[in-house]
Amino acid sequence: MALRFAIPSKGSLYDGTMSFFDSCGLRIVRPNPRRYTAGIAALPDVEVLLHRPADIVEKVADGEIEIGVSGLDLVEELRGDRDDLLVIHDDLGYGKCELVLAVPETWIDVRSWRDLADLAAELHAAGRTMRIATKYQAVMRRFCVTHGITSFRIVDSQGATEAAPGLGYADIVADITETGTTLRDNQLKIVGGPILKSQACLISSRKALRNDPQVAQTVQTILEMVEARRRARGVVQVTANIAGVSVEDVGQRIVSRPELAGAQGPTIAPVWPRDAERGALFMVTLIVPQERVLPVVQHLRALGGDAIAVTPAQYFFTAQSETFARVMRDLEER
Amino acid sequence: MALRFAIPSKGSLYDGTMSFFDSCGLRIVRPNPRRYTAGIAALPDVEVLLHRPADIVEKVADGEIEIGVSGLDLVEELRGDRDDLLVIHDDLGYGKCELVLAVPETWIDVRSWRDLADLAAELHAAGRTMRIATKYQAVMRRFCVTHGITSFRIVDSQGATEAAPGLGYADIVADITETGTTLRDNQLKIVGGPILKSQACLISSRKALRNDPQVAQTVQTILEMVEARRRARGVVQVTANIAGVSVEDVGQRIVSRPELAGAQGPTIAPVWPRDAERGALFMVTLIVPQERVLPVVQHLRALGGDAIAVTPAQYFFTAQSETFARVMRDLEER
Amino acid sequence: MALRFAIPSKGSLYDGTMSFFDSCGLRIVRPNPRRYTAGIAALPDVEVLLHRPADIVEKVADGEIEIGVSGLDLVEELRGDRDDLLVIHDDLGYGKCELVLAVPETWIDVRSWRDLADLAAELHAAGRTMRIATKYQAVMRRFCVTHGITSFRIVDSQGATEAAPGLGYADIVADITETGTTLRDNQLKIVGGPILKSQACLISSRKALRNDPQVAQTVQTILEMVEARRRARGVVQVTANIAGVSVEDVGQRIVSRPELAGAQGPTIAPVWPRDAERGALFMVTLIVPQERVLPVVQHLRALGGDAIAVTPAQYFFTAQSETFARVMRDLEER
Amino acid sequence: MALRFAIPSKGSLYDGTMSFFDSCGLRIVRPNPRRYTAGIAALPDVEVLLHRPADIVEKVADGEIEIGVSGLDLVEELRGDRDDLLVIHDDLGYGKCELVLAVPETWIDVRSWRDLADLAAELHAAGRTMRIATKYQAVMRRFCVTHGITSFRIVDSQGATEAAPGLGYADIVADITETGTTLRDNQLKIVGGPILKSQACLISSRKALRNDPQVAQTVQTILEMVEARRRARGVVQVTANIAGVSVEDVGQRIVSRPELAGAQGPTIAPVWPRDAERGALFMVTLIVPQERVLPVVQHLRALGGDAIAVTPAQYFFTAQSETFARVMRDLEER
Amino acid sequence: MALRFAIPSKGSLYDGTMSFFDSCGLRIVRPNPRRYTAGIAALPDVEVLLHRPADIVEKVADGEIEIGVSGLDLVEELRGDRDDLLVIHDDLGYGKCELVLAVPETWIDVRSWRDLADLAAELHAAGRTMRIATKYQAVMRRFCVTHGITSFRIVDSQGATEAAPGLGYADIVADITETGTTLRDNQLKIVGGPILKSQACLISSRKALRNDPQVAQTVQTILEMVEARRRARGVVQVTANIAGVSVEDVGQRIVSRPELAGAQGPTIAPVWPRDAERGALFMVTLIVPQERVLPVVQHLRALGGDAIAVTPAQYFFTAQSETFARVMRDLEER
Amino acid sequence: MALRFAIPSKGSLYDGTMSFFDSCGLRIVRPNPRRYTAGIAALPDVEVLLHRPADIVEKVADGEIEIGVSGLDLVEELRGDRDDLLVIHDDLGYGKCELVLAVPETWIDVRSWRDLADLAAELHAAGRTMRIATKYQAVMRRFCVTHGITSFRIVDSQGATEAAPGLGYADIVADITETGTTLRDNQLKIVGGPILKSQACLISSRKALRNDPQVAQTVQTILEMVEARRRARGVVQVTANIAGVSVEDVGQRIVSRPELAGAQGPTIAPVWPRDAERGALFMVTLIVPQERVLPVVQHLRALGGDAIAVTPAQYFFTAQSETFARVMRDLEER
Repeated sequence: MALRFAIPSKGSLYDGTMSFFDSCGLRIVRPNPRRYTAGIAALPDVEVLLHRPADIVEKVADGEIEIGVSGLDLVEELRGDRDDLLVIHDDLGYGKCELVLAVPETWIDVRSWRDLADLAAELHAAGRTMRIATKYQAVMRRFCVTHGITSFRIVDSQGATEAAPGLGYADIVADITETGTTLRDNQLKIVGGPILKSQACLISSRKALRNDPQVAQTVQTILEMVEARRRARGVVQVTANIAGVSVEDVGQRIVSRPELAGAQGPTIAPVWPRDAERGALFMVTLIVPQERVLPVVQHLRALGGDAIAVTPAQYFFTAQSETFARVMRDLEER
Repeated sequence: MALRFAIPSKGSLYDGTMSFFDSCGLRIVRPNPRRYTAGIAALPDVEVLLHRPADIVEKVADGEIEIGVSGLDLVEELRGDRDDLLVIHDDLGYGKCELVLAVPETWIDVRSWRDLADLAAELHAAGRTMRIATKYQAVMRRFCVTHGITSFRIVDSQGATEAAPGLGYADIVADITETGTTLRDNQLKIVGGPILKSQACLISSRKALRNDPQVAQTVQTILEMVEARRRARGVVQVTANIAGVSVEDVGQRIVSRPELAGAQGPTIAPVWPRDAERGALFMVTLIVPQERVLPVVQHLRALGGDAIAVTPAQYFFTAQSETFARVMRDLEER
Repeated sequence: MALRFAIPSKGSLYDGTMSFFDSCGLRIVRPNPRRYTAGIAALPDVEVLLHRPADIVEKVADGEIEIGVSGLDLVEELRGDRDDLLVIHDDLGYGKCELVLAVPETWIDVRSWRDLADLAAELHAAGRTMRIATKYQAVMRRFCVTHGITSFRIVDSQGATEAAPGLGYADIVADITETGTTLRDNQLKIVGGPILKSQACLISSRKALRNDPQVAQTVQTILEMVEARRRARGVVQVTANIAGVSVEDVGQRIVSRPELAGAQGPTIAPVWPRDAERGALFMVTLIVPQERVLPVVQHLRALGGDAIAVTPAQYFFTAQSETFARVMRDLEER
Repeated sequence: MALRFAIPSKGSLYDGTMSFFDSCGLRIVRPNPRRYTAGIAALPDVEVLLHRPADIVEKVADGEIEIGVSGLDLVEELRGDRDDLLVIHDDLGYGKCELVLAVPETWIDVRSWRDLADLAAELHAAGRTMRIATKYQAVMRRFCVTHGITSFRIVDSQGATEAAPGLGYADIVADITETGTTLRDNQLKIVGGPILKSQACLISSRKALRNDPQVAQTVQTILEMVEARRRARGVVQVTANIAGVSVEDVGQRIVSRPELAGAQGPTIAPVWPRDAERGALFMVTLIVPQERVLPVVQHLRALGGDAIAVTPAQYFFTAQSETFARVMRDLEER
Repeated sequence: MALRFAIPSKGSLYDGTMSFFDSCGLRIVRPNPRRYTAGIAALPDVEVLLHRPADIVEKVADGEIEIGVSGLDLVEELRGDRDDLLVIHDDLGYGKCELVLAVPETWIDVRSWRDLADLAAELHAAGRTMRIATKYQAVMRRFCVTHGITSFRIVDSQGATEAAPGLGYADIVADITETGTTLRDNQLKIVGGPILKSQACLISSRKALRNDPQVAQTVQTILEMVEARRRARGVVQVTANIAGVSVEDVGQRIVSRPELAGAQGPTIAPVWPRDAERGALFMVTLIVPQERVLPVVQHLRALGGDAIAVTPAQYFFTAQSETFARVMRDLEER
Repeated sequence: MALRFAIPSKGSLYDGTMSFFDSCGLRIVRPNPRRYTAGIAALPDVEVLLHRPADIVEKVADGEIEIGVSGLDLVEELRGDRDDLLVIHDDLGYGKCELVLAVPETWIDVRSWRDLADLAAELHAAGRTMRIATKYQAVMRRFCVTHGITSFRIVDSQGATEAAPGLGYADIVADITETGTTLRDNQLKIVGGPILKSQACLISSRKALRNDPQVAQTVQTILEMVEARRRARGVVQVTANIAGVSVEDVGQRIVSRPELAGAQGPTIAPVWPRDAERGALFMVTLIVPQERVLPVVQHLRALGGDAIAVTPAQYFFTAQSETFARVMRDLEER
């Protein structure tokens, strides 16, 4: 039976998932844009299902689906005490947003979470309860408990949460935001930092990973490609031609500044001279971090380097996949 | 305190509500397009609140809001046994859609609701339960009970319901549709006619109407304008110049065909002749149904009519507002 | 059997037809935007078919379809010697375009059709033939014959005709244009005036009109509504209150300038004085051409007029439909 | 020689001008959308020129152009001491915006213009000058003088003025705004009310109006149509059928509530009964303000009214054009 | 004289051609987006002409144009018996579509081409002829002949073919489709598989290739670049650092699994150690198929590999161009 | 204090700057799309300010900003005699446009700048002055002086310059254009070639570069990356496997055609044979210009090459940055 891999069915999480997996060599192809099943050529045994992000968390936790992509915010909100749910990659790099607390602009004296806790206590003393509109009920209950807000009422809000204070059915809101503009337009101001930083994540379940070797293998393939793709953004291959008397001579001069000599050192090969009159040339190849390109270039130039080409890699694998190793450790720990 | 009137905050119900009330002389003005409160110049005591359509049904039923616009489908789904909720206009003419039942195309033998009931029974006998994906749980439970489907399970679906059979978590779906294209694209076919025909409606509560004279008066104003606007689409004023010897002569000739003589008969006034040589002319004014314009024109022409102008009315009021009268009767009945 | 009425299936002729018939009270409703049949509520026996404009001309001429909307350019191009084809309205007011002749900008000495005829003769004398790219082959053959261009070759072009000289397979082009920009961008200039002025037209066939009373009646209905709608754009109803001693007094003063006294003279009715102290007032009603509104207003003001309201009519019928009368005459003549 | 009438060449003032003059029966037609001259069929002697709004003010003031449309803000900014410039209509109803003062959000203590004057004085005492970024230099100099801000420097800004404090080259800004969002996004807050409320206006010059009768006549035509169109939005014609024994009977009953009896009283005409058995009916016609429709309808119903049609006028003229009269007075006064 | 290379002038074939040739290093540049000639910097002797796809087939077959891009469907439809036309690349990878047969949904018993042949025979026996609407007349005639459909009539259709059965002028259709949605919306169902699978192709003529060395050379350049680009999508270069005692040691270990050792084996070069304490390292370079990246990575890791970079090539050439070789063979064969 | 780097705040210069610097590894990130400050991760000490292009020239020249991006046209127009302003890169490759002179189409005899000078003289003799509408006043004054146009008047035009002759306030125009379409639509024709070819450029000031080492270093970083990115578009790395008996053998054969042997000659490394039976193989690596790829491929094939991969570089640095060296020389010269 095919392994079920669920991805968000619309919105920015959908767009982000499609382009991210494409860039990882795991292109998701929908035969018909109005159907909700798809496939991945590189993973022929996997059936891709398009679901709402919240449903994906539920279904993976319940074992109906083996692997899924969702948002960290929804995992936090919906996981409850289902320990079986496992976040196997929490930094896919898209779908970023923050959960923040916002209060009416007119509450000039409320500037921190602490102020809010104090206010809730005062209201309670006066016989009132601070009402918080949010669709993140579980997250907010935990937040209030751990931040000393003891008297509050959660008002469920499935849309346009920022309107709640203006419409009169809540006092403050806890909502997802990017730039804060919508909050300001509704005359609210953010108090404190983000309660939760969210982005797209990959989830599975302990049971699926333990019982089904196909799941573990598919998870490994996905994690390998995702990790290699993300690493590749940070490193480049630099090649240069450098004059010298021998490989040793060139090698020693390059490693004289080890921090500019590549991850493990240069590979050096003689260049067959186009023009025999010129002295010996050697082609040097280095793998260096993206942000150190210019110092490396200057170092090579100082050694007489020329024709210095910088080439990005599409994927960059290390000796083992750290994310997959971590997943395996997590699995064994319990 | 201002009366609260809630309208849908987005989607086609929002657009429809904005343009419909505008055409009724009750233009809703939002001071800032990102805020959720608005006003109506012609109803200065009314505060307009923008809510999700489902919330509007709940809040009107619970008395938090006095009047609202929502969809009939949501009223049917959410009203439960809250008798206080009152649909005061059920034909605003926009937001039309139908709730239908759809089964996989491959179920060749299922062509009617009856076939479906039989199939559900067969499945039950074989130890299985027919799963129906829908977000109209209450409506569907009632439907199944009244149509002899005794063994079934409702699978809650808050989006992309049509994908449920293809994704494997339901057997059939009950969903809102317009052209059926999305259903066909997911290889489903509609069985039987519409379970529910829905459109935008105006709702209030018995309690609000009974206790607050301002609510009754606002409801009357809205219903008067809505009704007069909708009536005006069906009638036109026809004026024509007709030669004749006297008002009596012209009048008798026109009413000789009473079905073409306007609602209550023609108003006839003499035309002061621009050219004294010409015989006497009379201007005739008739109010006639839109669809009878051409026969009336032919009738007037046969009597020598010329310069026949057809003018639409913006509003057309009858001796009393029938919709408001019905609301008042509904209110007294219980 | 239903009468078949064909309208263009896409492009500006489609959009124009939909909105024009809507404004004439003959709204065309497509049950599904991807199907090619439609209906008109006011003409229940008519089936609307969506075809390509060229096919409509052919099918109406061949009797496969009773009535159609197409472009005059296509009628001219495709009618051939099919005398049965009848243009029953040639001025629907949309889909306007012109067929023009364009030559390379570098032909400085060619400024008129006459110059072109001379050039064609010169080329012929030099053993060459002037090649004209066009999709209006029949129209152009007639044009050349009647304008003294005796040596030419028509190059059929079903698209991007303006590219033909630049691409080298024609010398000049005859093409449909609106602003001439595309021609100029291809370094062509227009020579002479338009060969043909085209717009949307209504067509039928003598046979259909003669043999089928339903066709004649439907044609009459359509022409009546189209004509009344077009006339209504040119006239308005003016009402004013004027002080005076009697209807006669007011009447005589108004008709003292007959050109400002309405089509057939004013209708005058006494106003019941709101304030008995004020002298007698009369309400005057006039039907006047749209462009004479201001002089009429000034005339009425000079007579003491006030509260002068100008109201447009939606339809304006005269004693008989001139366009339908002409069609009937055309039919009898042969 | 043709009279020159300049309108804004792009932006919301362009769109507003095109649709406003169209609705006034003075449709502006551009033969080619990329050219900058146009015409008005109803004013054949007028040549329409498209200019930038600021140039229009300059050119009308300098007598290069006879009539123009621009914004009140630009007139205020650019008129200087050119008394010849005359605003002949200052309420065209579109292009509305406000000039406001905004300061950094962090200036908590600055809440009014008075606070700002105090701050400017303090800065001056400390050897600094408050810098105001604006493109309304003249308006702001006058504003500062009349509001006690004596030490300031105007920093000219022709775009993105709201960025000036953030970019460091001004302390505060005076800029045009609609919702204030852009200001808030740049962390500025509005202080005090609007300095200037602007909208589209019609301008001409004393010299042109005095010397050229054609200018005065064109101005009159434009003002008449603009005024009649604007008035028409406020009044409607109400007709109703009312049972009664005589015109007198009906008339007296209607004027018993003079505030609901129309501007000058009802026009009453007998309806020729379709059904002789029914008692006498009279058609009543009233001109009433738009906002009093419902009370008038209730009044007519109370008198037995039925078939009450409400029709909007397209134009509504009074005994003379007040705006034109005012322009003529302004002209004579100096 | 410049060689003429024709490409489609609009639609998806135009977009596809522009981006495909760009990706092949043969960017087509139009100096003016409204003109129909263009150039390719890398092929300075080539003049690019923009034509309709059908015209391109005709003109290449007739020798008016040397090389062209069109659709395989049009080549099949229009080539007739012109053997001179040569498809030199039939798999450019874009412009994909299928020609299918569709019948009314109500024809429940027709499920295959065989059923259709039977039905045609039955209709013929009953004195009727099955009408097939299509714009692929030649293709369909051949299809019918080879599939035993002996009684049929082709109805020419140049647009909206899917409407023909609903409009009544054909019984079935043969049309180009992508998802089948338009067919379903017109209540048709596809019968049998695709009659023809089409995509963009490159065409030329035997005569042009034989007579003009410039044509052969340009064709070779295009085919080389196209082929190298398409191959490059399937292979990647993998480099890794591997610890070992010598080149021989590393080489032997890598080729111990020849299927993971690259096309022809690894290139191995010593890494100059950044840190002399560490043992000898070697940089290995392999060219491997895209889909075998992960197994190769695992193999290298198993040998102690690290810093494994995967880099895609832009072009990948083999020892000779297979497509050009095939074209040359085709040319000689006749 | 942070170094200030100004970029255009909107239009095509903004878009071009954002994507160009992104492609150079200097991605500009705006935290809020409505604010006017941004940052560059790779240049942490640089504050990016968004200004109008004209303001950027002024502010860099005045020393308010250290480095900026603007258009060469604005630099030419606004630099005046401020020698401190330094164009440090004048070929960023985007924002290209030309300043041209255009006269009315009807001026048939004016075909060159010389004709224009003659005409200006004639007009002057006749007591008139040729009026030139432009927003490039300084450039045009210099142009007129150097081209013998001695009698002229510059009419300042800040928008829609091409309309000036048609509107009557200038005789000819000097304006920026791309395709000339707008000029032709206003019935103007271009005379002579471009007066000025402009594109995006990088500017700084002598003072900033001399006094602030941080400026010089940032300029160097930017120039290095820009230059390396631009160079990389012109070169590719070619690798191939070639059979041979030794490195020497392969090397000599490759350099036998030095023009196809790479910039400095091939790097040659032995391939460890996957299949020991096959003869010795060597991997050859060459850096060659993009446009010589095919000849190099053919050369390598002729030597038995296979598996020839072409890989583009992202950056290509030479022994030193020529643009930075030139800037340093410019700086010292004065």
